Amino acid sequence: MKSIKFAVLLLAVLAVLVLSCNQQPSATNTGSDPLPSWNDGTSKQAIIDFVKNSIDSTSKGFVPVADRIACFDNDGTLWTEKPLPFQLFFVIDRIKALAPQHPEWKTQQPYKGILEGDLKSALAGGEKALFEMLMTTHAGMTTDEFDKTVKDWMATATHPKTGKHYNEMVYQPMLELLNYLRANGYKTFIVSGGGIDFMRVWVEQAYGIPPYQVVGSSLKTKYDTTRTPPVFIKLAEFNFNDDKLGKPVGIHQHIGKRPVFTAGNSDGDYAMLQYTSTGSGPHFGMIVHHTDLMREYAYDRDDKLARLNNGLNDAKKYGWIIVDMKTDWKKIYSFDEKTESDVTKE
Amino acid sequence: MKSIKFAVLLLAVLAVLVLSCNQQPSATNTGSDPLPSWNDGTSKQAIIDFVKNSIDSTSKGFVPVADRIACFDNDGTLWTEKPLPFQLFFVIDRIKALAPQHPEWKTQQPYKGILEGDLKSALAGGEKALFEMLMTTHAGMTTDEFDKTVKDWMATATHPKTGKHYNEMVYQPMLELLNYLRANGYKTFIVSGGGIDFMRVWVEQAYGIPPYQVVGSSLKTKYDTTRTPPVFIKLAEFNFNDDKLGKPVGIHQHIGKRPVFTAGNSDGDYAMLQYTSTGSGPHFGMIVHHTDLMREYAYDRDDKLARLNNGLNDAKKYGWIIVDMKTDWKKIYSFDEKTESDVTKE
Repeated sequence: MKSIKFAVLLLAVLAVLVLSCNQQPSATNTGSDPLPSWNDGTSKQAIIDFVKNSIDSTSKGFVPVADRIACFDNDGTLWTEKPLPFQLFFVIDRIKALAPQHPEWKTQQPYKGILEGDLKSALAGGEKALFEMLMTTHAGMTTDEFDKTVKDWMATATHPKTGKHYNEMVYQPMLELLNYLRANGYKTFIVSGGGIDFMRVWVEQAYGIPPYQVVGSSLKTKYDTTRTPPVFIKLAEFNFNDDKLGKPVGIHQHIGKRPVFTAGNSDGDYAMLQYTSTGSGPHFGMIVHHTDLMREYAYDRDDKLARLNNGLNDAKKYGWIIVDMKTDWKKIYSFDEKTESDVTKE
Repeated sequence: MKSIKFAVLLLAVLAVLVLSCNQQPSATNTGSDPLPSWNDGTSKQAIIDFVKNSIDSTSKGFVPVADRIACFDNDGTLWTEKPLPFQLFFVIDRIKALAPQHPEWKTQQPYKGILEGDLKSALAGGEKALFEMLMTTHAGMTTDEFDKTVKDWMATATHPKTGKHYNEMVYQPMLELLNYLRANGYKTFIVSGGGIDFMRVWVEQAYGIPPYQVVGSSLKTKYDTTRTPPVFIKLAEFNFNDDKLGKPVGIHQHIGKRPVFTAGNSDGDYAMLQYTSTGSGPHFGMIVHHTDLMREYAYDRDDKLARLNNGLNDAKKYGWIIVDMKTDWKKIYSFDEKTESDVTKE
């Protein structure tokens, strides 16, 4: 009897091992909701239908594993971008931190405006002023030095409205979407107008996206062999602007394959959504629509920094899903309490 | 008793399932030789030692999965590059194919030289001539058109010495090394001076390396929305030269992480080998030394296109393994018959 009991015990252990052994990267966990922070509705259903079809080799919507490329904008799509894009807060904070070494900034724009908390006067100098601030805070140092600065800033700086660290302000429903796609054999990429070096420091931890799957804007970099060991120097010269028409170019350059799934939130993402949606095979485009003034921010056609106008106009034409943050998402952030819409649903 | 027999049977089935359930991407197949085309010796042993340590969390040489980045040069490291780099054969063949539409080429260098089979006179114009031939054959078309041209050429053109298609002339021992690294959790990247668009057409099939893990030289590309659907146009302007000091820059730009394993064969790879070998953690650098005049080609310090001089001089300093193709490799290509060294070993 002892040996039978042992066999049964062993059986149970082996059964657990087999059940936990997920050999199929394309297998979906059909038993539980893969998108628990999404309210039931057309957006959630469209995502699930697309993904399910894409892994079903008998479906018209089937996508071979090698083609399962998913691209995500970052600012406003994976994390908040208001009241200012977070990388701009980094610029402002860096200027304040560097100010003691630059007494001349007290009377010199755009620095004067930043130091006095008058962003409007700082930005009055237009692109030239912005370029100068960018280069002051992003160039002239090694990549290691820059990485450390971003890391330290991310660990200490907080958002003016929520008081949370910026990398905590990632959208819980989008984290679930990234995981859901990856669990079904998709490679998830960031394709952002933000700085590639700025993002790579923290996105692996925040989103599970490794540095080689990040496409972004960049400065030219020099491999400087005059130091031992050699280092990379960030030069005060633009290398690539990964925004608008630059996004498909960035995708071509970095990924070399047309995505089948793309998510964005502003007209800066229009071209990459269009590129995705003009492929000959199955494809999915979605736009995160900022409609939730209570839990996040509400902006679209009239926004100056993240205008969403053409995307809304042409969504029907290209079959893009408009995700309504207010009604489609139970939670915005992982730290959100249960919300009204959440309670209503239960 | 029936239920006991059933339990035992189920036990057996489950045991088989568990044993076949390979959850660990870092597990090595210890039972068989992972590098069968490599002769036993210091090179093979050094590779195996490094990889085994890198997946052993109790070893000083352990490398976390996220850091298992391996970079490979292409020309002369993964496939043959003689008598000319194969992309140059593509240029020559394209000029011949396009000549009927350009009667003026009969009297115009560098085309005249190419059409008359006089490469020396064609290249007499130096970099300017080479640039002109490159742009004539690589720019002014859509990326889809270019891809098709490369694909068709690869399927038809043959090597002047072996008579094989160029993508058959990949090194069998290196294919095994790529597979061995991937089986142990490494991401394998190509980092080549060759054209990124040229390589992406065929490397996935040849090496199992997806397009987003290819780093190479490129022309600027325009996303042209005046066509429906929009297309990419290859412009006659250099975007990036992924050679020499450009290789670490390409790695930083594209991968965003220092490799721990790098293989090259010429001084064009020196900087990326050095970048790999000046990391603070475990690292491995290897140089494929072309020593086999009978089975392939023999060249190093005096070669004009693929000189290997500094690499040989500094191999000891950086701990780079010099792989001797003649003695270290049983086979060069998969189509090779058993060779003398192979027979000697048995």
